[in-house]
Amino acid sequence: MKRLRTFIALAAVPLFLAACGNLGSSSMSSGSKTSTSGTQLTGQSNDNDYEGVIQSGHYTVSKSRGVTNTQDSGNTYNLKSFENGMLSVSKKVFSTKNYVFQEGQYLSSTTVQNWLDRKSKTNSVGLNPVDNGSKSASKRNPIYIQALEEQDYMTQKNGKLSLGGVTVGIAVNSVDYFKKVQYGATYETKITQAAGEAYAKKAANTVLKRMRQKSALKNVPIVIAVYRQASNDSLIGGTFLAYSNNKAGSTSVAKWTALNQKNYVFPISNGASSPNSNDASSFSNFKSQVENFFPNLSGVTAQAQYDGKTLQGMHVNITTQFYSQTEIINFTQYLQTAAQKYLPSGVPIDITVSSTDGIQSFLNRTASEKKFSSHVFNSY
Amino acid sequence: MKRLRTFIALAAVPLFLAACGNLGSSSMSSGSKTSTSGTQLTGQSNDNDYEGVIQSGHYTVSKSRGVTNTQDSGNTYNLKSFENGMLSVSKKVFSTKNYVFQEGQYLSSTTVQNWLDRKSKTNSVGLNPVDNGSKSASKRNPIYIQALEEQDYMTQKNGKLSLGGVTVGIAVNSVDYFKKVQYGATYETKITQAAGEAYAKKAANTVLKRMRQKSALKNVPIVIAVYRQASNDSLIGGTFLAYSNNKAGSTSVAKWTALNQKNYVFPISNGASSPNSNDASSFSNFKSQVENFFPNLSGVTAQAQYDGKTLQGMHVNITTQFYSQTEIINFTQYLQTAAQKYLPSGVPIDITVSSTDGIQSFLNRTASEKKFSSHVFNSY
Repeated sequence: MKRLRTFIALAAVPLFLAACGNLGSSSMSSGSKTSTSGTQLTGQSNDNDYEGVIQSGHYTVSKSRGVTNTQDSGNTYNLKSFENGMLSVSKKVFSTKNYVFQEGQYLSSTTVQNWLDRKSKTNSVGLNPVDNGSKSASKRNPIYIQALEEQDYMTQKNGKLSLGGVTVGIAVNSVDYFKKVQYGATYETKITQAAGEAYAKKAANTVLKRMRQKSALKNVPIVIAVYRQASNDSLIGGTFLAYSNNKAGSTSVAKWTALNQKNYVFPISNGASSPNSNDASSFSNFKSQVENFFPNLSGVTAQAQYDGKTLQGMHVNITTQFYSQTEIINFTQYLQTAAQKYLPSGVPIDITVSSTDGIQSFLNRTASEKKFSSHVFNSY
Repeated sequence: MKRLRTFIALAAVPLFLAACGNLGSSSMSSGSKTSTSGTQLTGQSNDNDYEGVIQSGHYTVSKSRGVTNTQDSGNTYNLKSFENGMLSVSKKVFSTKNYVFQEGQYLSSTTVQNWLDRKSKTNSVGLNPVDNGSKSASKRNPIYIQALEEQDYMTQKNGKLSLGGVTVGIAVNSVDYFKKVQYGATYETKITQAAGEAYAKKAANTVLKRMRQKSALKNVPIVIAVYRQASNDSLIGGTFLAYSNNKAGSTSVAKWTALNQKNYVFPISNGASSPNSNDASSFSNFKSQVENFFPNLSGVTAQAQYDGKTLQGMHVNITTQFYSQTEIINFTQYLQTAAQKYLPSGVPIDITVSSTDGIQSFLNRTASEKKFSSHVFNSY
């Protein structure tokens, strides 16, 4: 980081252009207040996050901005988990120390839209299968690929940011929702994990070949990650199945690395099992301590992510009726104690307390911390 | 605190009953998991907050729970600012080190409701004026007192929590909203600050006298604080005008201490002025740096509280369209740098970033910190 920062700073003549670690040194231009010229970086909240690229005071948005968003509207958890997962996979290949994040600049909205459409006479580049005419859930060709997103990872060469690598995420459906007539009922074609994964891996080869045709993408590593979307009724997003790191110049995927990611909603529903019964019972002890705190029952659920049998983190959601600010303050203090006592240690956990009026308070703890820090949302 | 903790711990035979500072020592019962017997405290997030009282695992809710809430539904900012302000006033008299917070246990819902009603043949205890029959905004007797709330402050005596003092907040209207016919249009009777304050101070004497009639309240200090509600169209809550600290046994208010609290919404609207032009220009520099970060304009406003000409703190609200998680992550990193650079230092500031999907991220800094810490809300 230090080296990168110095490099960029040296090059910043006459522009003030500097990266910053942990906000110690500000990356803001000290020049004009309303429009900053040149390239800046966002600054870095912590060493585990990439800095992002700002051009003339504006964030460099994705060239296909919004395409994924629309695609994913069925289950909003998918969007966040897809993009966060792409960042996590990228961190395995492009370190946050040496690379800067930039939203995808090489695949345009039109390109991504055409690739996501079905293959047809008018759209020869479609990655989804041709429409075979059937309206039967089991006989039709489903839409396999629901979203495709590009993320760019920049390095510093001769005082300028330049492309150091690209990550492409391919999201396949677990359920393809379709209508037989416009505005009609919604039907479902289920896609098994094996079928979806195989389809995505085949498409990944096509995508890699096509990307190599762009001169800027010829000689950089391209990571491709395959994601399986959760169904629309899921209370949690999907997970990544596999990724490949394709060396500069390679035009077909040589090797896939499997990912053993699984998401769970706590409390585990009857009949289902969690990968680790200790975590499940920790959570239910916490839940029973917390749900009866007020005369009105508070709802306590959690999203948990596992890598194999190892818990990776938890998002706890508590919903409660809002009566008074002092109740929320005291509830939050109580949660701080109860969470430390009952919830699994050694993993990042956050807890949000919401009412119909929106979020009321929030607690979190990183993997290495012992105590939860908390914040009660307030108003003058 | 230390002393209090030891006292309570000593007394906790056979119950486990202990206060705790900063979560270092847990106040949770180590006994039964689902129902904890005896008195506990919530634990304390930081030295500036009171701990709260838990009885048999349940929070000790106010005996008049919900009455204020209903009263205040016109402007939800009022409720939070009223209760937080009562805590702030209380801290001037009852230190967080030596007192424990308990929701009001001496004034019941019925009592508070009757006091808040108009005086009438059937309700001789009403603190609001008799209905003079007029429907004219300027001739009718308005409802002056909109809310009344009790907070109890407990100390430790002979190993048991006992009442150490009480704070009563009296909230007067700046505007009394009324209807001439049921379900009809809403009309307004404006109440000047002077008139509202005078009315509340007179009522305070009555309240004090009545409270002294309860044996438990005879010999404890009773703090009475007068609050002026903001109008329903305000983007900020009301403020406290004055408080009195009435010694044990006293039945009439001897002395009022004026409070010079003022709330402002930034950016200051045209023609209006803020108590400190530096703060206002700091905020607008921050705003112009931030609002053009994305191609879609982000809305940036703030609530600021002043004591005289001195800024006490700021709640900044940023609304932005939600496109992607990576945008929010980078925006938040950028805000961290920009907020540190532009926003006034030495006061507590928090910043929430929301979209139509709810809160996306959050930053805050205490008065003594230099750097903002941040959290991006996430999902698996």
